[in-house]
Amino acid sequence: MHKSAALDSQVKIRINDLIQPIADDLLSGAAEIALRAITIFQGVLADSEGDLPTPELKKAALTYTAKGLIDAQPAMAPLFHLGNDVLIATEPATTNENLAELCNNALANFEKTLCASASTIADTAYDLIDPGELIFAYSFSSTVVSCLLNARARGRFFRVVCTEARPSLEGRKLASRLASGGIEVIHTFDNAMGLVLGNCSAAFMGCDCIARAGVVNKVGSWMLAVACRELKVPLYALSGTEKFVTDERMFEFERHERPGVEVWDNAPKGVAILNQQFDLVPYNLLAGLVTEKGILKEKDIDPYLAKISVHRDLKLEAALS
Amino acid sequence: MHKSAALDSQVKIRINDLIQPIADDLLSGAAEIALRAITIFQGVLADSEGDLPTPELKKAALTYTAKGLIDAQPAMAPLFHLGNDVLIATEPATTNENLAELCNNALANFEKTLCASASTIADTAYDLIDPGELIFAYSFSSTVVSCLLNARARGRFFRVVCTEARPSLEGRKLASRLASGGIEVIHTFDNAMGLVLGNCSAAFMGCDCIARAGVVNKVGSWMLAVACRELKVPLYALSGTEKFVTDERMFEFERHERPGVEVWDNAPKGVAILNQQFDLVPYNLLAGLVTEKGILKEKDIDPYLAKISVHRDLKLEAALS
Repeated sequence: MHKSAALDSQVKIRINDLIQPIADDLLSGAAEIALRAITIFQGVLADSEGDLPTPELKKAALTYTAKGLIDAQPAMAPLFHLGNDVLIATEPATTNENLAELCNNALANFEKTLCASASTIADTAYDLIDPGELIFAYSFSSTVVSCLLNARARGRFFRVVCTEARPSLEGRKLASRLASGGIEVIHTFDNAMGLVLGNCSAAFMGCDCIARAGVVNKVGSWMLAVACRELKVPLYALSGTEKFVTDERMFEFERHERPGVEVWDNAPKGVAILNQQFDLVPYNLLAGLVTEKGILKEKDIDPYLAKISVHRDLKLEAALS
Repeated sequence: MHKSAALDSQVKIRINDLIQPIADDLLSGAAEIALRAITIFQGVLADSEGDLPTPELKKAALTYTAKGLIDAQPAMAPLFHLGNDVLIATEPATTNENLAELCNNALANFEKTLCASASTIADTAYDLIDPGELIFAYSFSSTVVSCLLNARARGRFFRVVCTEARPSLEGRKLASRLASGGIEVIHTFDNAMGLVLGNCSAAFMGCDCIARAGVVNKVGSWMLAVACRELKVPLYALSGTEKFVTDERMFEFERHERPGVEVWDNAPKGVAILNQQFDLVPYNLLAGLVTEKGILKEKDIDPYLAKISVHRDLKLEAALS
């Protein structure tokens, strides 16, 4: 086992305080949250309290931050990759200056790639939005929002139907964002998907992570996918390849169970509340995965999974030991 | 066109006031509401204000009540049949006494049939509940509740999973009722159906009306049905044959659109809210229709539809003219 420098408990508390808002955020998509996590790494690295005088302590703090962010949102692959990139990049650093440079480069690269991906995905998705048609969009995904707003800004007229996405209702955030961008929105509750989907020419969802077994996204995505197939509406997951994860991390999303009171705050005795946040959509229910590398199918996935290298501190075996 | 006696506007207001709570009730199933409507007919017939001195006026008031009840819940077939039975039964009456007797007999028969059906259906459904298994139940149906409570009272142990049934949340009423009857309940939001259905040995739903095209029930039933087929969970609609309706009345449920504010009370500009209450489940998605006549399949339906005779005042053509 690799030995890391021991962090002061005050430093841990300060990092936990930075991470808490990420854990509490039920409304934002994975790409959006990863962008915010970049500023957390920057804050830790800045070490304004002077608690981290050596490169070893700084590395320990970055590792603690990376693990904390992954634990805060275990389904969100971009948080994993951000932390993983930072730890791999800073590994060889021997001085504070060198570490700061390597870390900032890794953060800047991650942000640049994320934004470039979003732009390429938006261009690909543009061709999937037929003029005058109705598009279904599920949950909240900054990638989906930027695709739809980009298409509208390029002069395409279409309407969007979306549903609430109980219990956090991030579908309302989606509706508001699209409406304020000049897109006409029809909004209904999740149950009513079956009433509206049949009129849609395509359906879009974001995703939290992608692995060999399928695409993980906000719970309800599987129901959407099954309904889309039944009604012959092509369903696309819009996502950069920073969402790919290895098999060992695939089912981490199942750890993300939220308090039952978020569903029903005064449930009677004898009623147990289940509040799982994610489900898995197998590839056979998807028309394709719209990424910055083009529209991928199941058979195209393996090379992306094969090239993921995981820093030893973020391996799940390491986390367990 | 048949001529009916002219009702005083005060009488109409009084009848409307009796009917309003039925229109406002978003939590009760169709059979339960029909039982309450019986007391409304009794109240109208009692004529405590003495506004209806002749059999003609009483008949006009009964017709007005029947139409009002159907309009209040256009998807609920038992309300149609209750009014239809009353109007057909009272047609030949020539004196107040005779009319009261015929009307009370019709109401008593309807109630007796409804209760006898519920009891027979419960006995049939008992055999569909495997010991120790998990049963999915959707929305609120007094028929489904009585089946589950009956099975529990007969000593069968099983658990029930149910979901909220947004936007009215009558799934919470279902959960509470079952829990207070000693059944262990697991409750989640509608989107999460896909996470729990795969563990269920059967799924039950009530229904509002049944016609040649399928079974009409609370919106979300279609999504449930598609998910059940995907996961190979048999889905049964539990319903007395008083839910059968003729083709002309089949799509009346589509008239039942509720105010958008019930879904989102401060939706931003540019967001239109859709609040439809019902959807249609085709027979090919159902394992069977559990009725007092046994478990019916699509091929068994026609004879029941053929024998429905509709009073001339309740024919949809008449309503339009």
